[in-house]
Amino acid sequence: MKLVIDMMGGDHGTKTTIEAVKQFVQLHKDCEIFAVGNEEEIQELNGLPLVHIVPSKTVLPMDADPMSAMKTLDSSLMVGIQAFLDNGCDGLISAGSTGALLTASIFKIKRLQGIKRPCLITSFPTVIDNKKFVACDLGANASDTKEELEQFAMMGSLYYSILYNEEHPKVYLLNNGTEEEKGNPLTKETYQLLKVNPHINFKGNLEGRDAMKGEADVIVCDGFTGNIFLKTLEGTAKAMGSMMKDAFKMNLSTKIGYLFAKKGIKAMIKKMDYKNVGGALLLGVNGIVIKSHGSSEAKSFLASMESAYNLAKQDLIGKIKVRLDSNE
Amino acid sequence: MKLVIDMMGGDHGTKTTIEAVKQFVQLHKDCEIFAVGNEEEIQELNGLPLVHIVPSKTVLPMDADPMSAMKTLDSSLMVGIQAFLDNGCDGLISAGSTGALLTASIFKIKRLQGIKRPCLITSFPTVIDNKKFVACDLGANASDTKEELEQFAMMGSLYYSILYNEEHPKVYLLNNGTEEEKGNPLTKETYQLLKVNPHINFKGNLEGRDAMKGEADVIVCDGFTGNIFLKTLEGTAKAMGSMMKDAFKMNLSTKIGYLFAKKGIKAMIKKMDYKNVGGALLLGVNGIVIKSHGSSEAKSFLASMESAYNLAKQDLIGKIKVRLDSNE
Repeated sequence: MKLVIDMMGGDHGTKTTIEAVKQFVQLHKDCEIFAVGNEEEIQELNGLPLVHIVPSKTVLPMDADPMSAMKTLDSSLMVGIQAFLDNGCDGLISAGSTGALLTASIFKIKRLQGIKRPCLITSFPTVIDNKKFVACDLGANASDTKEELEQFAMMGSLYYSILYNEEHPKVYLLNNGTEEEKGNPLTKETYQLLKVNPHINFKGNLEGRDAMKGEADVIVCDGFTGNIFLKTLEGTAKAMGSMMKDAFKMNLSTKIGYLFAKKGIKAMIKKMDYKNVGGALLLGVNGIVIKSHGSSEAKSFLASMESAYNLAKQDLIGKIKVRLDSNE
Repeated sequence: MKLVIDMMGGDHGTKTTIEAVKQFVQLHKDCEIFAVGNEEEIQELNGLPLVHIVPSKTVLPMDADPMSAMKTLDSSLMVGIQAFLDNGCDGLISAGSTGALLTASIFKIKRLQGIKRPCLITSFPTVIDNKKFVACDLGANASDTKEELEQFAMMGSLYYSILYNEEHPKVYLLNNGTEEEKGNPLTKETYQLLKVNPHINFKGNLEGRDAMKGEADVIVCDGFTGNIFLKTLEGTAKAMGSMMKDAFKMNLSTKIGYLFAKKGIKAMIKKMDYKNVGGALLLGVNGIVIKSHGSSEAKSFLASMESAYNLAKQDLIGKIKVRLDSNE
């Protein structure tokens, strides 16, 4: 197995990515790493087993314009994409600019045959222990058609079934009400397509307030709505975490309470922490491309690497290709 | 002052609305109440000072089709709307079907002059104590134009300034990124309108993850996106509340921890509880129309009544009219 790592992309620079790579190679002896970045900055990786250093000169800014980013061929992202293609790699992980990563992946690594548009997908916690749901598109696109949403539903369903070993994942459409006739023009039309699609187990509309209850396996929406959903969920969880901290700091009694309750509270915070999730997968391109959180720490970046490793082990891309062929 | 109360609309029937009305008349001696509902069920209110019982025969279901609901003239909602018009009332509160309430209010109570579409607005907590933000449209509409969003921004700004005594509220557009060029076609176009609107203090785009940080005063979005935002925020807060409960139940130590921390935790939960918010206002019609939460308990329904009372006291509708006139 072969993974390309963009060492330069994140907010925290190479410190976190170097740490993640070092931990990763300790854990996996069957995976080559192509570490792309400034040679001096990442020389620490020199000599690690199965690690190849691939030098790059520049780093794309987080708000890089995707099309001009594509022309910055000496950037860690573009050098990484080239290394991916030249070495027949399985996956690529970057914590850099989302737009640049998506655009470069679509143009260079290419979409899978028959896929109109790739989507961003990731797993979310629910109130039920160990039960997760996935949602897509979380923002690879800013506007979508009903046919694209239908493909997201099929790809998302397949992804969930591979990841969580569930043969017929329950698919829901994110909407402003549960009744069939609810929605904006896009969700109304998409509902009619999903209802008759034989490749998915469509269960109807779902409201944002029910997402974390644990009933849904796959939640489908357009990229704009998905981005609002993802960030509102993240922001609310973070705000509540911060309010919880304040609550424990209220007085001596609450401080003592924290000492006793610490174990439970920490387990809960861990569950809600995106750092353990492993980034978002760009589903629909011919490789495992993972966008790690821009503010990734080593733990979070390592989780993204683990996620790519596991999906490659399970031959996600091969299985999607088989399913896409059989759907034709 | 005169308020119409739909006694029948909520999930919990008249028990909660009767309790709320009884508490309300204890608190306010300067407000007539027109309590609309099944005469037998609400006879308890008979003889209360300033309370008029207005009999109605039927109750609209929560999923009532708005247009056919308009024809059910003996329903508590439609009788209530008629009582509002006949008695020159200031406000109307219902915990019944949102769609029916909105449609009936728009057709019967009418929009304010110059307003294309009313929007739903409410206040949200932030991580900063006593600092709130408002967001609109939360779902009065399923799809909107940029001109409608611009009006929501102006109405929302005015609403915030009256409610929180802040002369130039900071207005943000809910979007999938902070940069000016981010967004779907609607948000991109709306940005350009808001940027040059002299009646608002526009600060740019805002992502869902930053809503609760306390920087924004008014967040503007289309009704579909707003509904996803509202329900995702509510659902995440509820899920975290439930996880927190589980965390405290983990073992004996965490249970003891809860006893010590209880005061802080309860204050935090109260802050996040929609029951204290007072429902959502239909902003842009010629009266204070408040949709109380369908699952409202007495406390929550009372908060909606208090909210209508305070907005009427402050002459919200009169002030909006003045502003609309001066904008022309």
